[in-house]
Amino acid sequence: MNFSLDTIPFGIFSVKNRRKKVATIIGNQVVDLAELAHLGYFDGLKIPKRVFTNDYLNDFISLGKAKTNAVRAELQKLLAQPNQLPESVFHEVTNVQLHLPVKIGDYTDFYSSEQHATNVGMMFRDPDKALLPNWKHLPVAYHGRASSIFVSGTNFHRPKGQLCPDESQPPFFSPTKRLDIELEMATVIGKANSIGQAIDVDQAEEYIFGFQLFNDWSARDIQKWEYVPLGPFLAKNFFSSVSPWVIPIEALAPFQVTGEKQTPEVLPYLQEKNRHFFDVELEVILQTASGNEVKLCHSNFKNLYWTVAQQIAHHTVNGCNLNVGDLLASGTISGKEPTSFGSLLELTWGGKKPILLPDGAERRFLEDFDTIIIRGYAEKEGVRVDFGEVRNTVLPAV
Amino acid sequence: MNFSLDTIPFGIFSVKNRRKKVATIIGNQVVDLAELAHLGYFDGLKIPKRVFTNDYLNDFISLGKAKTNAVRAELQKLLAQPNQLPESVFHEVTNVQLHLPVKIGDYTDFYSSEQHATNVGMMFRDPDKALLPNWKHLPVAYHGRASSIFVSGTNFHRPKGQLCPDESQPPFFSPTKRLDIELEMATVIGKANSIGQAIDVDQAEEYIFGFQLFNDWSARDIQKWEYVPLGPFLAKNFFSSVSPWVIPIEALAPFQVTGEKQTPEVLPYLQEKNRHFFDVELEVILQTASGNEVKLCHSNFKNLYWTVAQQIAHHTVNGCNLNVGDLLASGTISGKEPTSFGSLLELTWGGKKPILLPDGAERRFLEDFDTIIIRGYAEKEGVRVDFGEVRNTVLPAV
Repeated sequence: MNFSLDTIPFGIFSVKNRRKKVATIIGNQVVDLAELAHLGYFDGLKIPKRVFTNDYLNDFISLGKAKTNAVRAELQKLLAQPNQLPESVFHEVTNVQLHLPVKIGDYTDFYSSEQHATNVGMMFRDPDKALLPNWKHLPVAYHGRASSIFVSGTNFHRPKGQLCPDESQPPFFSPTKRLDIELEMATVIGKANSIGQAIDVDQAEEYIFGFQLFNDWSARDIQKWEYVPLGPFLAKNFFSSVSPWVIPIEALAPFQVTGEKQTPEVLPYLQEKNRHFFDVELEVILQTASGNEVKLCHSNFKNLYWTVAQQIAHHTVNGCNLNVGDLLASGTISGKEPTSFGSLLELTWGGKKPILLPDGAERRFLEDFDTIIIRGYAEKEGVRVDFGEVRNTVLPAV
Repeated sequence: MNFSLDTIPFGIFSVKNRRKKVATIIGNQVVDLAELAHLGYFDGLKIPKRVFTNDYLNDFISLGKAKTNAVRAELQKLLAQPNQLPESVFHEVTNVQLHLPVKIGDYTDFYSSEQHATNVGMMFRDPDKALLPNWKHLPVAYHGRASSIFVSGTNFHRPKGQLCPDESQPPFFSPTKRLDIELEMATVIGKANSIGQAIDVDQAEEYIFGFQLFNDWSARDIQKWEYVPLGPFLAKNFFSSVSPWVIPIEALAPFQVTGEKQTPEVLPYLQEKNRHFFDVELEVILQTASGNEVKLCHSNFKNLYWTVAQQIAHHTVNGCNLNVGDLLASGTISGKEPTSFGSLLELTWGGKKPILLPDGAERRFLEDFDTIIIRGYAEKEGVRVDFGEVRNTVLPAV
């Protein structure tokens, strides 16, 4: 990883036994913003210094875009000449601990990739009617668990639960046999709306602070037995993971790509004047305990049918209130090519087409001690924005 | 309302322009615990006074049961002789504002009444197979929205959204025409478990601080169009409401009633040594703008198939972590008698059997300016525990 001056993300770090602070990163150098503030570098911006000496970014984000973008612009100016800054503000990334950057209030998971929804529908329902009737009319979503979202580097134990592969037999209790990943992006909400006040789709991006890589770990066998009629629960809430750096939406301005017209036409509250996605390359890598490394897929944040602005407009059209720090995940981002499918469920087509590893081993779903790494970056005409990675290892069931 | 010495619940109050503090209530007198602490009444208990001068109960609850029960016992002793306390600690309940008592982290809604699940299954699926195959094997649940849970007395606007009553036609945008209530109880989590650590069903009640009345407001027409395959979303997250006083689980010790044996036998992690429910009478009252008042139903917290202990054991069996202040709602509590059904959906059987009001008007679902009041109490051999009420009025769509 080599974070550029075009990125300037925000995160939370600590050095051993010291308290958490707000940071950015340039190259592989974590930059201590509390120290910069203490030294007076942000004095012109009239920002309370306490927002930088903080366990989470929420207070910083709550300053609003005018302030946070001013900090980002100041950092771009300062970090263009890093030699003029005191050494005390820099830390090798390998010498610090990176923490969950945002205190997440509510977490919502969307289901916004047409190819993903089609793949799942083909496997589990009628292949001729893979998309459900509501899918092209509204961005389907459900509420997820915020407490079990952890930062990259946190490992977790294979979850246990009820499985019932043959419903003519009673269910049994077991560690999941179908542990999967979902390649997603998470949107960090940067501004609250009041209860009862819908957010206009054309103003929705003002409510976005930025984005992170997101892995929506899933236990497919637990999911199959539990999810009708109220949706996924224990199949998802055992663990989710995010990358440590939040990339401000402003960094992605050069990477907007126009979205195709939607057919059928959506209802007016979902119609956008400037419909766009973000061209961010995404890849998923599997590392096994025996040293195999294989790229599972290569997708892109633009492989969605519903924009983040539409997700926000839909989420609030009934008056639901979003808060600073809420997380909206995109749902699995699968492109049209089979090599761009964002889950093992799709890549192995429900376990029927195993992935061959370099040493001859196979994977249908994940084994203990497998590590999954999601990486992301945007690059165009000399501008490069890095998302870093989210990396976690599966430990055996407790 | 006339809260007894057997109740001694906890809540958050403020008097005009003053800060929020922790309180209890006796009769109709709100008791200022911050003032009692300030005056030294809790000095023997070695509790930091700041937990009482607080916007939420979470810090108080986090002290743990040994401390919070000691405060409750001290209050029962002090309030047995209220004349010996200074007047400054008492406020008429009509002179104060009561606030959301707990900062809710994650909110989960269960679906634990057999009669409710059967009624819904009969209306929407196959009457001969009303319960889905998983229902008697696990306490079905889904994650809900924490941000839109408000305290009794808060009113809200009728939500708008996509409706599609006839799926051969496209959906349209409208205020909901099928606004409903759900009579529920909410469990306030009082102790956290670590990620990866399941809670044993026989120890689960140690993780319960107490209970509140809960109204899970629902838009049935929005729900019908959106909920397959990932569950309810905008049909629920526009507004939910809780009563202002949290009743500690210890107050309900005299009201434990043994639960029937479950058939089929549940998996070992759900088998309880001392399986019990709580005998708490619940009623729902409708008041209309024109002055009608009618009791919609009379149910009981014991009308459940899954105990709260089983809900907690199931929720964490995959390692999911609960935090202090998380809320677990029971799902609609419907008994076997039609007069005990806990939603208009069931009471009017999907709108087919309207409720006749005293002035000859009818209700299938709620009209603007209708007020719903849920009340609860437990009474036995001279011991009475009051839950107070949760009361909200439907305002017209914005």
